[in-house]
Amino acid sequence: MNQCVMKDMDTIIQEIVKFRDERDWEQFHNSKDLALALSIEASELLELFLWKDNEDFNLDKLKDELADVFMYALLLANKHDLDIKKIVLEKIKKNADKYPVDKAKGSATKYNEL
Amino acid sequence: MNQCVMKDMDTIIQEIVKFRDERDWEQFHNSKDLALALSIEASELLELFLWKDNEDFNLDKLKDELADVFMYALLLANKHDLDIKKIVLEKIKKNADKYPVDKAKGSATKYNEL
Amino acid sequence: MNQCVMKDMDTIIQEIVKFRDERDWEQFHNSKDLALALSIEASELLELFLWKDNEDFNLDKLKDELADVFMYALLLANKHDLDIKKIVLEKIKKNADKYPVDKAKGSATKYNEL
Amino acid sequence: MNQCVMKDMDTIIQEIVKFRDERDWEQFHNSKDLALALSIEASELLELFLWKDNEDFNLDKLKDELADVFMYALLLANKHDLDIKKIVLEKIKKNADKYPVDKAKGSATKYNEL
Repeated sequence: MNQCVMKDMDTIIQEIVKFRDERDWEQFHNSKDLALALSIEASELLELFLWKDNEDFNLDKLKDELADVFMYALLLANKHDLDIKKIVLEKIKKNADKYPVDKAKGSATKYNEL
Repeated sequence: MNQCVMKDMDTIIQEIVKFRDERDWEQFHNSKDLALALSIEASELLELFLWKDNEDFNLDKLKDELADVFMYALLLANKHDLDIKKIVLEKIKKNADKYPVDKAKGSATKYNEL
Repeated sequence: MNQCVMKDMDTIIQEIVKFRDERDWEQFHNSKDLALALSIEASELLELFLWKDNEDFNLDKLKDELADVFMYALLLANKHDLDIKKIVLEKIKKNADKYPVDKAKGSATKYNEL
Repeated sequence: MNQCVMKDMDTIIQEIVKFRDERDWEQFHNSKDLALALSIEASELLELFLWKDNEDFNLDKLKDELADVFMYALLLANKHDLDIKKIVLEKIKKNADKYPVDKAKGSATKYNEL
């Protein structure tokens, strides 16, 4: 069988939406503020690394902040009925054009300077 | 049957990792820079709403930017073997304590001011 | 004489406001969008360091991005008649309480963990 | 007389540097982490507007967060001996080319879509 009865993504979204609706918070969740919240959470995740070496971070705090990032990203995707697998696979295709293997391999250079 | 042969999340991560390894980019993907990249993508998503009304945005661009956010979030989770469903459900529990329904319902107030 | 006829800060603000008004852009400059723009510029500045070592950046680009950050910070301050010297000196005082020298010297620890 | 004995910008920088050196914090202030700190403060400023209307914010908190933004922006400028007036006026000139008055007047459109 290759059909999932319960997909991971849907389970998570279900719980996030339940949490939101128990508190009647959908009224605040316009797209601009969801994007704003997502950006703020990404910044809180980044703060775990401030003044620190590249792998010097608190794992429990990383889990918490990364979870917050996923929550707002999933709320925004859910609001506009976006299929996450679909949009990510499509963006990977676009990125493949911007960063052809022969030009980009082993290089961190941005595409407009390749 | 409740076991998935192919989970959505794993499929996506597989493709992201394949894209990364084709270009030999793992060498750049330390945790601090992954968090940095995630923050930058969240900011590019936010830019779609700059000077605009709450629902006035380009849907195609939203899909692209949101996809980029998911890619870096998934790379960071994957790097530390984090189970996304697990960390999100755990954070929802913590948020439930910070925002009890009877206090938080219908209110956008931050938890430290409830 | 210790009075300035022309203060640096005022000169800069004057030019920024002139640029804005020539283009009739004040209509877009509500406080939320100014804060949004400032955050986006700070992120573009940060992008100069993505995947790079701590001092490996392009100086000309740093000047440009830092200038953009100052522009929006000054527009926001100007919009609410804030005296920059006053608010910075006051915040330094508050920070001195959060980070007393005897506790904070030589340490990058955040104040709530000192 | 048009020469300033004491410039606003220099006074502020002097106080910020004094605060930093009392705590022996310069060791942490590499350019990448200063840019990171600046981005985090800009995000904290942005958080004052989350879920809120465009002018619905706490002025005292705005002063604090904006002060933090200026502090890191000035530290970064000071680290590389940048003349703030010079870099801002130069960027205004570049922006004038990207946004000619006849094309950009009254429009919030980004320059690459003008």
